[in-house]
Amino acid sequence: MLGKSGPGDDVREPIRVVQWGLGTMGSGMARLVLAKPGLALVGAISRRSELAGRDLGDVLGVGRRLRVSVTDEPETVLDAARVDVVMLASTSWARDQMPDLRTAIGAGVNCVSIAEEMADVEAQSPELAAEIDALAKASGVSVLGTGVNPGFVLDLLVVTLTAGCHSVERVEASRVNDLSPYGQAVMASQGVGLTPEAFRAGVADGSIVGHVGFPESIHMISEAIGLGVNRVEETREPIISSVRRETPHVTVEPGMVAGCEHVGVGFRDELEVVRLVHPQQIHPQAEGQDTGDYIHVHGEPEVDVAIRPEIAGGQATMGIAVNVIPHLVAASPGLKRMIDLPVPAALMGESAYVRRT
Amino acid sequence: MLGKSGPGDDVREPIRVVQWGLGTMGSGMARLVLAKPGLALVGAISRRSELAGRDLGDVLGVGRRLRVSVTDEPETVLDAARVDVVMLASTSWARDQMPDLRTAIGAGVNCVSIAEEMADVEAQSPELAAEIDALAKASGVSVLGTGVNPGFVLDLLVVTLTAGCHSVERVEASRVNDLSPYGQAVMASQGVGLTPEAFRAGVADGSIVGHVGFPESIHMISEAIGLGVNRVEETREPIISSVRRETPHVTVEPGMVAGCEHVGVGFRDELEVVRLVHPQQIHPQAEGQDTGDYIHVHGEPEVDVAIRPEIAGGQATMGIAVNVIPHLVAASPGLKRMIDLPVPAALMGESAYVRRT
Repeated sequence: MLGKSGPGDDVREPIRVVQWGLGTMGSGMARLVLAKPGLALVGAISRRSELAGRDLGDVLGVGRRLRVSVTDEPETVLDAARVDVVMLASTSWARDQMPDLRTAIGAGVNCVSIAEEMADVEAQSPELAAEIDALAKASGVSVLGTGVNPGFVLDLLVVTLTAGCHSVERVEASRVNDLSPYGQAVMASQGVGLTPEAFRAGVADGSIVGHVGFPESIHMISEAIGLGVNRVEETREPIISSVRRETPHVTVEPGMVAGCEHVGVGFRDELEVVRLVHPQQIHPQAEGQDTGDYIHVHGEPEVDVAIRPEIAGGQATMGIAVNVIPHLVAASPGLKRMIDLPVPAALMGESAYVRRT
Repeated sequence: MLGKSGPGDDVREPIRVVQWGLGTMGSGMARLVLAKPGLALVGAISRRSELAGRDLGDVLGVGRRLRVSVTDEPETVLDAARVDVVMLASTSWARDQMPDLRTAIGAGVNCVSIAEEMADVEAQSPELAAEIDALAKASGVSVLGTGVNPGFVLDLLVVTLTAGCHSVERVEASRVNDLSPYGQAVMASQGVGLTPEAFRAGVADGSIVGHVGFPESIHMISEAIGLGVNRVEETREPIISSVRRETPHVTVEPGMVAGCEHVGVGFRDELEVVRLVHPQQIHPQAEGQDTGDYIHVHGEPEVDVAIRPEIAGGQATMGIAVNVIPHLVAASPGLKRMIDLPVPAALMGESAYVRRT
């Protein structure tokens, strides 16, 4: 592994990356790696047996053969002598990520995962966090969970905006997006098109998930700033439309559910110190709500930020996962969070090379 | 020096800080250190001989004695066995900072400087950057220049906002502030109240400075993202008021100068890739301009950010200089920029302790 090069080394070989998981996100990450001169895509893993043996260029639809075959046998490509980083895009859950993580870490390869719960494993699973950290240190590799959210907008960016604050009383952030471009699976997971009663039943039986990642974002903010959060509460409420809203997949009549208002609140004892709000719905503009990311730091000084429209979700998740690679390769071994590394930057020109020196 | 504690250590002693320079900024930084449980203010240095020997609590006006005397002999307090970090607040210029830096680094003490040119010394003085880096590594300490700008709004925050970008074509950022609260010295340095002719003469003879830090911010952005900037151009133009504007220190009649529009542009060969705009004037609202920080990343995806009002300048410079301390203490030895460290966060509760572990 070339990974842990010291300061002063000027290693000009590209960082060698394997993509594990070739769904929408994983395929997008792989295509982005191909576009970066400082990165080399040297392997791809998919559990979908129909992809095994096919050329990755063909699977990704990039219009050329890459002379890299997709495999369903991770051990055949994960080898510290030939791979620096593996990017995992196969689950949202830390526990489900563990078998693949153990394989990759055991092979001596640095890991980036876009599983939401991996953004701060300690938030909900301290025992898994300890296991990953110990395995990573034993193998001399770094492990990071990231993505647009958790991993960036509602945590790292919030923390960054407190950089100049003398004190922070509490932080509030909301992310307003538009689900209209998405298909039936997303509509179902957010309860779009249901009656309010059916929505509440869906929340109760777990079929309406809302956003995955509030405990992770809140824990990360609290740890970074020192807000002492010791309790997180989440609520999922129906966004009941007062107008007709329509997409190719769903029609919402007045009185029906246009989406899910998911709120996560972090308390220090009885005091609210973090409030994260993520209403996900179709056509928020239909009732005058602009999509955007809004962050307010209540402190000294106050900081009030609006990003309009919101930072594009899926696209930014792919981008962040790839853009962190040089920092991950340079990091000390262990389990990392975004608040533990220098901020990622878009990798233009030769910047991926530059970071390695 | 307790500084370079490894992961796993759980050192619960506060980080010991010396303040060097007790002007408005330095005094504010010292007061902020006093407010943080994880930091201990163990010394203060001032070249103003009338302060030497006085109790620091008295000089800072905090209403209690601190049993720390101000000294004008740096060698008497800078001692690696008793000091972790010194905060330098005495100049804007890297070259003028060098003698004090050599003293502090030689004593084995980590250094934070708010000298604007220290934010990225390599931008204008690669030979000084190399000297500082070599000295710091020889002494096993870290050296960082920071502040609200350069150091945060027009560089680190711009870079952070590209974290999810697949590509960046160019970035633009502007910081619109209101000089009305400031006194005669600031009015003079920005040309407020002059005729346009007198303003241009002041730019020509160097008495109208505008903002210090564009080459540093542009270099930092270019290095982080890989934009390949190889030329920086700066312009300082008079903001000619069309209405009457007035402060206790100056009156600007229509046709006179309300401030200085300072622009820094970074080019890669002939292509503009970074544009930073910092109009500094009294009462911008008089002509409908809101104060604020505005950042636009032209890339894939686009990112468009507004922070209103602007992040409070002096206050945030003090805040950032103090909030970076735990990251600086944990950093590897050498000359650092803000893009090389994890983002600083407001230090509430026990977060300064937490970062040391």
